[in-house]
Amino acid sequence: MIAVHLEGGGVSIVTRRVPMRPRGFARIRMVAAGICNTDLELQRGYYGFSGTPGHEFVGVVEEADDGKWIGKRVGGEINLACNKCEWCARGLGRHCPTRTVLGIVRHPGAFADYLTLPERNLHAIPNSISDEEAIFAEPLAAACEILDQVKITPGEPVAILGDGKLGLLIAQVLHSHGAHVTHFGRHRAKLAISSKAGIATRMADARLPAQAFTVTVDATGSSAGLEQAVRMTVPRGTVVMKSTVHDPVAIDAAPVIVNEISLVGSRCGRFKPAISLLKMSKVNVKPLIADRFELRDARQAFARAAERGCLKVLLRGPHAE
Amino acid sequence: MIAVHLEGGGVSIVTRRVPMRPRGFARIRMVAAGICNTDLELQRGYYGFSGTPGHEFVGVVEEADDGKWIGKRVGGEINLACNKCEWCARGLGRHCPTRTVLGIVRHPGAFADYLTLPERNLHAIPNSISDEEAIFAEPLAAACEILDQVKITPGEPVAILGDGKLGLLIAQVLHSHGAHVTHFGRHRAKLAISSKAGIATRMADARLPAQAFTVTVDATGSSAGLEQAVRMTVPRGTVVMKSTVHDPVAIDAAPVIVNEISLVGSRCGRFKPAISLLKMSKVNVKPLIADRFELRDARQAFARAAERGCLKVLLRGPHAE
Repeated sequence: MIAVHLEGGGVSIVTRRVPMRPRGFARIRMVAAGICNTDLELQRGYYGFSGTPGHEFVGVVEEADDGKWIGKRVGGEINLACNKCEWCARGLGRHCPTRTVLGIVRHPGAFADYLTLPERNLHAIPNSISDEEAIFAEPLAAACEILDQVKITPGEPVAILGDGKLGLLIAQVLHSHGAHVTHFGRHRAKLAISSKAGIATRMADARLPAQAFTVTVDATGSSAGLEQAVRMTVPRGTVVMKSTVHDPVAIDAAPVIVNEISLVGSRCGRFKPAISLLKMSKVNVKPLIADRFELRDARQAFARAAERGCLKVLLRGPHAE
Repeated sequence: MIAVHLEGGGVSIVTRRVPMRPRGFARIRMVAAGICNTDLELQRGYYGFSGTPGHEFVGVVEEADDGKWIGKRVGGEINLACNKCEWCARGLGRHCPTRTVLGIVRHPGAFADYLTLPERNLHAIPNSISDEEAIFAEPLAAACEILDQVKITPGEPVAILGDGKLGLLIAQVLHSHGAHVTHFGRHRAKLAISSKAGIATRMADARLPAQAFTVTVDATGSSAGLEQAVRMTVPRGTVVMKSTVHDPVAIDAAPVIVNEISLVGSRCGRFKPAISLLKMSKVNVKPLIADRFELRDARQAFARAAERGCLKVLLRGPHAE
């Protein structure tokens, strides 16, 4: 089979054996996959990564222990947990200390003809969700994670900072939850996606409102975002940290303490609410698709995804329709 | 009357008129007061302060609208709230946007023969609490605030970083609440105060345990404390920020996000639980008293309080027993 291989900053297409399927695992034929900012970071050598990336995908199960999966169209949770420790017992395998992570930590990813995942990680994709929409289950789950961590009541004034892929998904998720969302960004074309979904938008180059939101989500991806989010949040409010920034972030602790702000780190989430939002058409992910490439053209796809302001770039497997 | 006056880094004793008592306010004869790190920061010019500091005190009411207060021994909440806004309506006058603050923001403090406070800010001090103990109601309330913000269940593994005055109070408060507290510090003599209260202590110069506590309180007062606290906290755990550090604090956002840690800024608290802890002898504050000075010797008292490693320095009013 062919697979994408990242090493030393380069993207190459390599030939690999079709992966073995350990007990309890399914072998999945990749249909389509999405390039995430994390994949671009892996390319740049973060986490000392070399290997096959890819953790946003939709595929069809070819082999599995449990016959019910065979032939099913699936997405999958990306954390491969031990299922024995206290974290796993609490349903938080996403924090299992010995986990591997699909396409990120010691488990080959989805940018290949085939991948494997534990059957317990799989989620069937309902027919009403297209292949391209299904790829968004993973980042959408990360957006939904905010609602698992922070109590947001309908009508609550919430700000989203940043109009990248994750910011756009978060805005729709919190809007569909009933929050009174204002989406701040620097790109009119991207904010227009939120506008069309009925969300209030505002260019972030103007003076930003101070102490105006009970919850502010920093999805800027920039080191200045956190401090800005703190300023925009009311006393006793919550700032959700969704920006993976690799340099140390300098924050002024004084306003955090004086105003008793909570800063909440937020990462992966459960697939179930994400798939449910897609199924009920409560979010519209299609406008986020910027481009499509065949898997064998992954090099060009990575270059396209790295262009400034580019939204989601998809890779199509050899079996894509 | 005499009053302490801070200006341009200097501490002086000045003569002032006995303060007028606006409607709804009590005039209080100062009996004793405590010097807090914030007072030392005001001396160094933080917040552009000049005037009379002092917000930890015990006194006797001489005049008030409500006769029940006359002659009563009292402590008092330090935030003077408008009592009209939404924050005040929610019982969070401590966050009232137009508040003044006793001895800190536009309201003369307790380092004087007399002070004034709104009667609604007053708390009667039960006879079983000595004058010197009563002074600790304010910093103890700040320690108790953690329990108003973060759910801590009995037996939960909690770390306190820092063995300064606030760290020592927090350790006793959370220990008396039933948490399984480990208190980390750099001073054997200070940690001994926690040891005597039955709290596990550990010198912080050794290698600190990683991902071991569900709640970690940073009371180090140092900019390195926050990052250390993040490292010591389990995924999905909480770091309470109790260190007022005036320089920007650099944190690595990645572990906060990957482990979904919550960082919770924490400041002043309600007096009621603090007075209750003192009354029931659930905390022992006396070992925290390092020295005592007459109010007229405030200059020496401030110098003593600024000595490295010095715990609480008290000022005695002219009416102290």
